Amino acid sequence: MRGILFVVSGPSGAGKGTVCRALTERLPSIHLSVSATTRPARSGEIDQVHYYFISRTDFQERIARLEMLEWADVYGDYYGTPREPVDRILDQGRDVILEIDVQGALQVRGRMPEAVLLFLSPPSFAELERRLRNRGTDTEEKIEKRLNWAHRELNSFPSYDYVVINDRVEAAVEKILAVMVAERCRTKRFQLMDLNPNS
Amino acid sequence: MRGILFVVSGPSGAGKGTVCRALTERLPSIHLSVSATTRPARSGEIDQVHYYFISRTDFQERIARLEMLEWADVYGDYYGTPREPVDRILDQGRDVILEIDVQGALQVRGRMPEAVLLFLSPPSFAELERRLRNRGTDTEEKIEKRLNWAHRELNSFPSYDYVVINDRVEAAVEKILAVMVAERCRTKRFQLMDLNPNS
Repeated sequence: MRGILFVVSGPSGAGKGTVCRALTERLPSIHLSVSATTRPARSGEIDQVHYYFISRTDFQERIARLEMLEWADVYGDYYGTPREPVDRILDQGRDVILEIDVQGALQVRGRMPEAVLLFLSPPSFAELERRLRNRGTDTEEKIEKRLNWAHRELNSFPSYDYVVINDRVEAAVEKILAVMVAERCRTKRFQLMDLNPNS
Repeated sequence: MRGILFVVSGPSGAGKGTVCRALTERLPSIHLSVSATTRPARSGEIDQVHYYFISRTDFQERIARLEMLEWADVYGDYYGTPREPVDRILDQGRDVILEIDVQGALQVRGRMPEAVLLFLSPPSFAELERRLRNRGTDTEEKIEKRLNWAHRELNSFPSYDYVVINDRVEAAVEKILAVMVAERCRTKRFQLMDLNPNS
């Protein structure tokens, strides 16, 4: 049985990174897809672990060769997911988690309709603002840009399959784990011969 | 938010009763709907706890008044679910579990399209036969009838939302609990104002 691609997405500040790290600790067998980006590595980030840090030219060539499952130009930097490693792991029967932004998730919906899309939402807009400001890595101008963008991104949730409110990380992880179990039970994943080999 | 009606159904011998009892032990807040039937009480069965044991005339009048969410004539006895108590508990925001046969589940699909249908399947047809024979409450003729019927009922699973293979009761219960959490996260249960009260 092929693996399932679970896309964990949502506005900047929803807590995607924290939730996905906690998820992989709870479920070590899951494969967390590594994105490619053209932005410079932040302090502590390791190439091929946190991102594939590649050049703009390299990224643009991959787009042209349709080797990107999704990609976006975010504040002047490219982010994207190479498709080949995802397909390879799904074919092995393992599930894959993609942690990506809203634009990326909507592209995956089009390019892999069987993917399961989860919208990770902050409990409130005020809490999202608090989280973005507490990061301390961005300028005020970038924070304002992110807030405006997040506001618009909240309107995209109807394109997703599930909404997970991230009020507490552990509770959000429990919900995502439940979705992963439930999706494996969806009727469309069964053939009659699975239930009744004599028929 | 209105409660969700979860229908746990499947062929006779799939283990619906055992699984639903284990489910209510794990989740005491869930309401397990009580069916009405015209068949005589078996040893140990208590009126209004295991079933509402009512007369054929009473049952037929309820059908005529459209007070049955589903009903069936099974081997000459009526079984069915009065609709009013289910609606009342859902309106209180509590979830309801209906443990019913395949005919009943397909009627609920038509009469309450928002219900979530789970098909509980035996791990194999041989195991289903073993379970039916080990019950020791039925005649050979009745067992044969049930086996033929179960064989046909396995073909109904595509009308359900989920398939839960009941190989181990605890594993089946875990899957149903996961479906209950996941269904609460389905996008269709959210409004934009839930996520962004300022919009």
